[in-house]
Amino acid sequence: MFAHVKAIECLLRTNTRLPVNVKCMFEGEEEIGSPHLQSFVTANRTLLHADVAVMSDMPIAGPGQPAITYALRGSLGLELEVSGPRRDLHSGLFGGAVHNPPQALCEIITSLHDRQGRIAIKNVYDNVVPLTSDERSYLSRVSPSDSSFLRDAQAERAWGERGYSVSERTTIRPALTINGISGGYQGVGGKGIIPARAAAKLSFRLVPNQDPYQVERLFRDHIARVTPNTVRAEVRAISWAKPALMEVRHPAIRAAAEAYKAGFGSSPVYLRCGGTIPVVNMFLESMRLPTVLMGFALPNDQMHGPNERFSLVNFYNGIRTSASFLKMVGFSSVVNSPDAASR
Amino acid sequence: MFAHVKAIECLLRTNTRLPVNVKCMFEGEEEIGSPHLQSFVTANRTLLHADVAVMSDMPIAGPGQPAITYALRGSLGLELEVSGPRRDLHSGLFGGAVHNPPQALCEIITSLHDRQGRIAIKNVYDNVVPLTSDERSYLSRVSPSDSSFLRDAQAERAWGERGYSVSERTTIRPALTINGISGGYQGVGGKGIIPARAAAKLSFRLVPNQDPYQVERLFRDHIARVTPNTVRAEVRAISWAKPALMEVRHPAIRAAAEAYKAGFGSSPVYLRCGGTIPVVNMFLESMRLPTVLMGFALPNDQMHGPNERFSLVNFYNGIRTSASFLKMVGFSSVVNSPDAASR
Repeated sequence: MFAHVKAIECLLRTNTRLPVNVKCMFEGEEEIGSPHLQSFVTANRTLLHADVAVMSDMPIAGPGQPAITYALRGSLGLELEVSGPRRDLHSGLFGGAVHNPPQALCEIITSLHDRQGRIAIKNVYDNVVPLTSDERSYLSRVSPSDSSFLRDAQAERAWGERGYSVSERTTIRPALTINGISGGYQGVGGKGIIPARAAAKLSFRLVPNQDPYQVERLFRDHIARVTPNTVRAEVRAISWAKPALMEVRHPAIRAAAEAYKAGFGSSPVYLRCGGTIPVVNMFLESMRLPTVLMGFALPNDQMHGPNERFSLVNFYNGIRTSASFLKMVGFSSVVNSPDAASR
Repeated sequence: MFAHVKAIECLLRTNTRLPVNVKCMFEGEEEIGSPHLQSFVTANRTLLHADVAVMSDMPIAGPGQPAITYALRGSLGLELEVSGPRRDLHSGLFGGAVHNPPQALCEIITSLHDRQGRIAIKNVYDNVVPLTSDERSYLSRVSPSDSSFLRDAQAERAWGERGYSVSERTTIRPALTINGISGGYQGVGGKGIIPARAAAKLSFRLVPNQDPYQVERLFRDHIARVTPNTVRAEVRAISWAKPALMEVRHPAIRAAAEAYKAGFGSSPVYLRCGGTIPVVNMFLESMRLPTVLMGFALPNDQMHGPNERFSLVNFYNGIRTSASFLKMVGFSSVVNSPDAASR
């Protein structure tokens, strides 16, 4: 974001006007699933009208290796609450004869994956579009290796769906993650209770052509099927974002590739990203507006984690890339390109 | 406790001295597993020397039906922590390829019980002493019914080990309860992270002759066996208390039965209680000192829960019972009884 602002400032200082018209849209709700964005986009099509959108909220392949992202995973945010007795019970007097809600929650969560690391919810993979072997082999050449992935994750071992590399598991395959879990006593020492309730935050990452609303229904069906009658389970869906897929031969993306050469000194690779940016699919579906996903961050910038950071080298390269892009995209005949509307 | 203090006060107001010598011991750490009690008891045998101990920290059978408790479950308090990546990770960029610690914790917790409600830890039932059919049938006559148990628990359905009534599951059989669970994001809405760690508080209730230190070893062995190499699990034991079993024909217990008749107007039944009071076994093992467990509380007094309460009727009946007991126990030849040392 700041790289683009800085690029505009540089261009305005060295030219009297920008090479193309620029509209800036700031969204402050992306991290909570953009709950008000769809209605804003629908209500402001004219204001937002553009030939191409640009966004830089994703990593590149590594230091010195820029990347253009052409696919994003969607997401579905959920809360799952399991309740049992109406109040916390004495675990001595009642322990062994009342189903413990944290235990029941654990049993339900365990049922969500099989032992091969696959999501064990019926029909959940039905709409996943398989990649061509050409695309899969291109991606395996340009994507981070398993070992560099694990180094960035500061994790010792990989886990997940058999038959896919770690990079594939995080980009071309759906994932279901427990983002948080809580229930009962959590302080120092112990407390002799059967907690009345326990809850978890879960989120799916979805790939083309999975639909978050359909996955929500499948999840609800699964929970209803596996919940024993000794507890009650409640599912609350809290956010929905569709996956997005861009046409890599779009002229604006070709302009971005040239801009990266100018800004980073090397051609970008084309990546799928495991993250989610709800607006990208909304622009596509509501306005047929494609987005160029020009990443500047490094894979180990600890996004969403403590000590999130951004390399200064990439910041300066990003400014140069953005300025070059603004100059080149005006010549790329975006407006009249037959590829302008993405799939 | 207050019933006994009040009984002593009444006796002193109507007599010049108490019928027996009374020593009061106050312990403030019972709810955290009495970590300093054993060393105190060992160091103060002379100070604590007595013919019989009295304690009233347990329920009776119901309103108007007093009870003497002759067995208590022991306990073992544990913490189980599962850690994965060194820090919270972005669930979009890493989700699907890193074992999620809350999920792994759930999978480990699920492995602790089988589908029949039994604890699925190898050898954990080995030392459980089976009851005679006489004792089992006596207890089934005097113990709360399944339906009254569920009413007291404010739970809709029973759960637990097949082949045992709910009352048996909470008194003569061991139980393993998750007292609390936590990890990752727990606030409003969602957060796209793979949490670096998740943890649970667990506690066993143990029956004669299970040993908490041996059960701790079995638990550690189980966790080591089921933990996948994609995460690390750490077990911390935080409290240990042995189960206790009293001789119901002990003269002091006979005196308590007579005292209940005077205080409540009816004879007590003899119950096993699912709760744990570490000092009872310590007095037995360290000093051969038996404890009369004279309960005054009702099963639905919400012990350890919110709005814990104590019925005034039982408070007054308790004062009368305690005063009668102090008068009668002096005549019960406790000191020279061959049953004085309990099993």
